Amino acid sequence: MPASLRPTTLAIAGGSGSGKTSLTRALVGLLGPTECAVLDHDSYYRDLAHLPPAVRAEANFDHPESLESELLAHHLDDLRRGRAVERPCYDFATHTRTQVTRRIEPRPVIVCEGILLLAVPELHHAFDLRVYVDTPADVRALRRVQRDIVERGRTVESVVHQYMETVRPMHERFVEPARGSADLVLGWQHQPHEWAAIVLATLRGRTQR
Amino acid sequence: MPASLRPTTLAIAGGSGSGKTSLTRALVGLLGPTECAVLDHDSYYRDLAHLPPAVRAEANFDHPESLESELLAHHLDDLRRGRAVERPCYDFATHTRTQVTRRIEPRPVIVCEGILLLAVPELHHAFDLRVYVDTPADVRALRRVQRDIVERGRTVESVVHQYMETVRPMHERFVEPARGSADLVLGWQHQPHEWAAIVLATLRGRTQR
Repeated sequence: MPASLRPTTLAIAGGSGSGKTSLTRALVGLLGPTECAVLDHDSYYRDLAHLPPAVRAEANFDHPESLESELLAHHLDDLRRGRAVERPCYDFATHTRTQVTRRIEPRPVIVCEGILLLAVPELHHAFDLRVYVDTPADVRALRRVQRDIVERGRTVESVVHQYMETVRPMHERFVEPARGSADLVLGWQHQPHEWAAIVLATLRGRTQR
Repeated sequence: MPASLRPTTLAIAGGSGSGKTSLTRALVGLLGPTECAVLDHDSYYRDLAHLPPAVRAEANFDHPESLESELLAHHLDDLRRGRAVERPCYDFATHTRTQVTRRIEPRPVIVCEGILLLAVPELHHAFDLRVYVDTPADVRALRRVQRDIVERGRTVESVVHQYMETVRPMHERFVEPARGSADLVLGWQHQPHEWAAIVLATLRGRTQR
């Protein structure tokens, strides 16, 4: 495959509630489904089927070790070489992988979204462009609370407890320090479609070099 | 009155949810009620009785102009001179001052608590010690959400809307910039009684000079 046709890989990282998914959706909207494929790091959560169900929920899902990043790295490598991959599907209710997988075909742009994408060594060479969505911690925390209470029906106490016990310390330890390794840091006061245009212009500039 | 008996005034400032009230309570616990009096800036909200009730709730209660700081400055001055004051009482339901006032007697330490105490020019010379409780924005935002939902029965949408529309911009504009004028900036990971001991030791060091 000529280098110009080699799929380009793009990481969209940033803390919980930073706006990664909105940016990813805006990118897909600009590129269209034939020009891009989306992989999310969350699909690569490790299967906890070997643990008793009551113990599974106690795992720290904000720690890099909870994700099988080496498999994601293999899949990104395959996609870059023009090969389709079988992305795992994760059942968040049981913390296990489902029997089915989802076939992801190579496309000119592979958009990969995840809090810890820039933080894990396995993925250090996996991306052509590394983007970090830099949204202030209070705005992120409130978005998360709102989403978990309104959309997921959780109590404010449980959301705040989880945020303070794992989300916040893991952010400070892994997510925020990885910001320095991003190629592009995006401020939060842009609209997702403005961000998406900036990201695509940067990506085109890079791949044309 | 000899200088050594002159009441000492202490400002406890910091953003919404930073832990000012916990620190104030811990100071009162250490000093005891005969050694200190508490004034809070919130009692000095301007009376909005001249506005229609529907319009009152639209006021920006996070802006320094919403508080009658010149009256608080007079009261602190009176207390420092050994004179009792009549502190206003504010009815937060109707945004008006009540007919009754509360008599505050001079005590060796006058503890004054409020988000904007360090931010208003009228109070620049009102305090012997200026303390700022410096708690990260996400922790403060979550405490506020939790308090407003659990204790005040508000919806997550209304709390988040108010935070984003007035609390956050006023914090960025007035509260945070005033941190630099504090004598003592306290990190958030101490317990209130640890803070209180540090504040009293600093206060004693200052007044013995």
